[in-house]
Amino acid sequence: MEHFEKHEDTLKHAIAAIGSRKYWSAYPDSPRAYSDEEPAAGEEAFQAQLGRPFELDQPQSGMTGGGEYSPYGVELGVTYPKSSVDQLMSAARTATATWGKASPQERAGVCLEILDRLRQNSFEMAHAVMQTTGQPFLMAFQTGGPHALDRGLEAIAYAYAEMTKLPAGETRWEKPQGKRDPLQIDKKWLIRPRGVAVALCSSTSPTLDGYPGIFASLVTGNPVIVKPHPGTILPLAIFVDTARTAIAEAGFDPNTVLLAVDTPEDPITEELVMHPAVGIIDYTGSSDGGDRLERDVTSALVFIEKSGVNSIVLDSAPDLKGIFRNLSVSLTMYSGQMRTAPQNVYIPAAGIEVDGEQVPFGDIARGLVGAIESLLSDDQRAGDVLGAIKGSDVADLIADAAASGQVLLESRRVNHPTFPAAEVRTPLIVKVDADYQRAYMRPMSGPVIYLIATADTEESLDLARKSAIEQGAVTWLVYTTNEEVKDQAVDAAVEAGVSVAFNLAGGLYVNESAAFSDFNGTGANPSGNATVTDPAFVAGRFRVIGVRSSA
Amino acid sequence: MEHFEKHEDTLKHAIAAIGSRKYWSAYPDSPRAYSDEEPAAGEEAFQAQLGRPFELDQPQSGMTGGGEYSPYGVELGVTYPKSSVDQLMSAARTATATWGKASPQERAGVCLEILDRLRQNSFEMAHAVMQTTGQPFLMAFQTGGPHALDRGLEAIAYAYAEMTKLPAGETRWEKPQGKRDPLQIDKKWLIRPRGVAVALCSSTSPTLDGYPGIFASLVTGNPVIVKPHPGTILPLAIFVDTARTAIAEAGFDPNTVLLAVDTPEDPITEELVMHPAVGIIDYTGSSDGGDRLERDVTSALVFIEKSGVNSIVLDSAPDLKGIFRNLSVSLTMYSGQMRTAPQNVYIPAAGIEVDGEQVPFGDIARGLVGAIESLLSDDQRAGDVLGAIKGSDVADLIADAAASGQVLLESRRVNHPTFPAAEVRTPLIVKVDADYQRAYMRPMSGPVIYLIATADTEESLDLARKSAIEQGAVTWLVYTTNEEVKDQAVDAAVEAGVSVAFNLAGGLYVNESAAFSDFNGTGANPSGNATVTDPAFVAGRFRVIGVRSSA
Repeated sequence: MEHFEKHEDTLKHAIAAIGSRKYWSAYPDSPRAYSDEEPAAGEEAFQAQLGRPFELDQPQSGMTGGGEYSPYGVELGVTYPKSSVDQLMSAARTATATWGKASPQERAGVCLEILDRLRQNSFEMAHAVMQTTGQPFLMAFQTGGPHALDRGLEAIAYAYAEMTKLPAGETRWEKPQGKRDPLQIDKKWLIRPRGVAVALCSSTSPTLDGYPGIFASLVTGNPVIVKPHPGTILPLAIFVDTARTAIAEAGFDPNTVLLAVDTPEDPITEELVMHPAVGIIDYTGSSDGGDRLERDVTSALVFIEKSGVNSIVLDSAPDLKGIFRNLSVSLTMYSGQMRTAPQNVYIPAAGIEVDGEQVPFGDIARGLVGAIESLLSDDQRAGDVLGAIKGSDVADLIADAAASGQVLLESRRVNHPTFPAAEVRTPLIVKVDADYQRAYMRPMSGPVIYLIATADTEESLDLARKSAIEQGAVTWLVYTTNEEVKDQAVDAAVEAGVSVAFNLAGGLYVNESAAFSDFNGTGANPSGNATVTDPAFVAGRFRVIGVRSSA
Repeated sequence: MEHFEKHEDTLKHAIAAIGSRKYWSAYPDSPRAYSDEEPAAGEEAFQAQLGRPFELDQPQSGMTGGGEYSPYGVELGVTYPKSSVDQLMSAARTATATWGKASPQERAGVCLEILDRLRQNSFEMAHAVMQTTGQPFLMAFQTGGPHALDRGLEAIAYAYAEMTKLPAGETRWEKPQGKRDPLQIDKKWLIRPRGVAVALCSSTSPTLDGYPGIFASLVTGNPVIVKPHPGTILPLAIFVDTARTAIAEAGFDPNTVLLAVDTPEDPITEELVMHPAVGIIDYTGSSDGGDRLERDVTSALVFIEKSGVNSIVLDSAPDLKGIFRNLSVSLTMYSGQMRTAPQNVYIPAAGIEVDGEQVPFGDIARGLVGAIESLLSDDQRAGDVLGAIKGSDVADLIADAAASGQVLLESRRVNHPTFPAAEVRTPLIVKVDADYQRAYMRPMSGPVIYLIATADTEESLDLARKSAIEQGAVTWLVYTTNEEVKDQAVDAAVEAGVSVAFNLAGGLYVNESAAFSDFNGTGANPSGNATVTDPAFVAGRFRVIGVRSSA
């Protein structure tokens, strides 16, 4: 309980924040907020791990490198324990015996301690995330470290609030029976885990996407088997190591958290998720993998976040400059590889009204292309914005998209000043007609931007809605000065099951969602059934066993 | 909002009760608490409906009688509107446009008004439930009326609490940016329904099993298509009629609640549940139907309550009289046809310790059989306890069970004094050895009781656990004076995912669960994934659409 007392204030603040939904963060996301030694120490710790086995004292039979690689072209050479599904399940089930019986306070204390230790490792994590996902450094620091920690804390706060709603001790229940003696019975309620949790994590955002499900399962008493994408392992290995150490030091079985590493040639996902001991599966990744889970898994609780087609709708604006500035960043950030990145920009073919004047489609397209070109003209800055491409089929993706419409800006290979072998690409910008839905109504998950010429804003919203309903969507951004259009856009967003932002022109980008305030995903369209984080994301992860004893 | 103000106190009490979990009820379950005119008026209303069409102004193409029949042998002859799946879905989707946008307060107000009107109809409902399910009158009154209403209110309270956690208005979010201006944005959150809800209800307990899911879906904004079992329609037709009237009077589209009647020859369940507009399915009924839903439905949220094998374990006791009295009722009530009814009684072959003395198995069996025989010796009282058998295969069930062990008490056909054609049966009591699992480790859902001779209490608990894990279980009852055994039983119950009661010897029966206090089901074994009622049962029924507007 010493951990709980140490971190109780953080938990209380988090619970208050998810109620007020005002800005709050427990882990600073500015590197300047950290001590002068931390950046170098973190990089050193990362470098020291390269080319070596990453040791974990979990049950294992040999080591494997997975298929891990760096899109920056850095030789990683880390190997990890290779554990069979039987070894993992057996260890996890044994761990449940103690972890599953701990109180919500004990478990929350240990989980908060894990977050705190990860915070102290934020720079090492930043390098690990950067080099395995291709994220630019600052993004890797923020989303891989503090933002992921905030989302983990948020999940803990939601789950803790749910678990502690029931009376903690025994309660006397007494039903009057008219003239007879009342019926009496003493009741208590035991919070018990659902089963072994499996977290299937993404190759592009392993900690930010992974922590919510991992911590929600962990704090509710379930042992967690963390299964990284075979190409992006190190960040989650660091997490698992940190978690195991903290858990063991708190007197619990370290096998409460386990790492499951596989290779593309010899995958274990199917065997893992279909194991009868599994009670919970969290998945973030491609649509194919998510669709398979939805279809095949029937007994476990399955939380899915997958890709979609995010839309921007231009209807009207007081000014274009701020819009171009904002969109040039949101459309290029990490080359559109995160599931919140916008892909399709709908603009009426006749243009839009800006401060009372009609600006033609061509002028808007030129302005946006120019803003993006200018942002990415310098190779260093281009690298800092775009990061590197994770995944091998980017050339095909770009060629395919280029053939589908009028190319307004060619994709260019950027020479990264620090990592010459890095795969860095500026986005391809293609103009297509609204009719050619086959081209743009599919998730590209890479450096491709479509400008879509529509009949009018009504058609823009219709197409955005259609693509969300059919392909999924996580974010919409609409620019309008017209209150009626705003209402129509909200109605369309509700039907499409997607959250919507209006008129972003400053330093806040549609790709970003804030822990404790924004829900990441609505769970209401094919981009996923999970809302990170809300009560539905946590409530089913534990079960209540009622115990009634004759009074 | 006038309904909300009228019923706000009831809602507040309900929310307080689910927190304290102490005894509370909004609807009196003693017939004596109602006015002198109500019993006769209710029976008259029921009688007046027999042999006539039950009219509802929903889209329809003709009438159908379903396959409705009374186990008491009463000629019902009621016909109901026959609506196609397309008619139902189209009407439901239209209704969403207004109901789905109403505030949580507006919707809760209307739902509470529906409950209040149903309360005024409790005696009509009692006769409808009795005659269509075979429940004895008092049970039909209590579980069909007030207990079902309490469970409906409980679901409304949980859902209302979840929906009103978010700020109701706009919230300014402001993130400090060091020396630069803070990032600012205005946020609001829209609570929106998940989709069309389908409630597939049971033939034995249509309102008690049905209301929680129906009201949870309704109050969260989803239109509900109520699909009764084709053999038990009238109680839900009364519900649908009452709900439609209240909804229309409140200014909403009455098609927010629709009745879907089919026949065993021409079932529509498959077409209903696989329709793409469906967002939520609630199912209570047989294991087969539930298993099919778990396997086939991938996009909708599915809540399932199905049958299981409920166990009683005898280890030790201060006295046997109270136990026999208690068990004679719980083992015979409504002939074991509710999913909470106990079926298997595990007793060590060497007997158990009672007040310091060893009582042999034979004496315990004789005592229990004697208590049951004596309770059911009078035909009137037997009818009042057993009710009538719903389902046509009872003779096969009894013959099959009789062949599986040593018959300690034959099943006897009771001549019901009021309804001579009623199918009333006393239970068959069979002694089997623990080894013969094939006989007793399956849900019998009828008048069959197994007394199972085990090596010791450890084996009794092992077998109870095994049957819960493999076949599901909703309730356990353990008799022991030994604290260590009690701990072992709790551990076994946790593993089995089943709630457990100890040493019931008075007027509280293991079959009964109390709204606002006991969870009906744990959702943690094959008897179902739903817990009635907890946050997991309500939280996913609505979705939150975030709207961010540049400040």
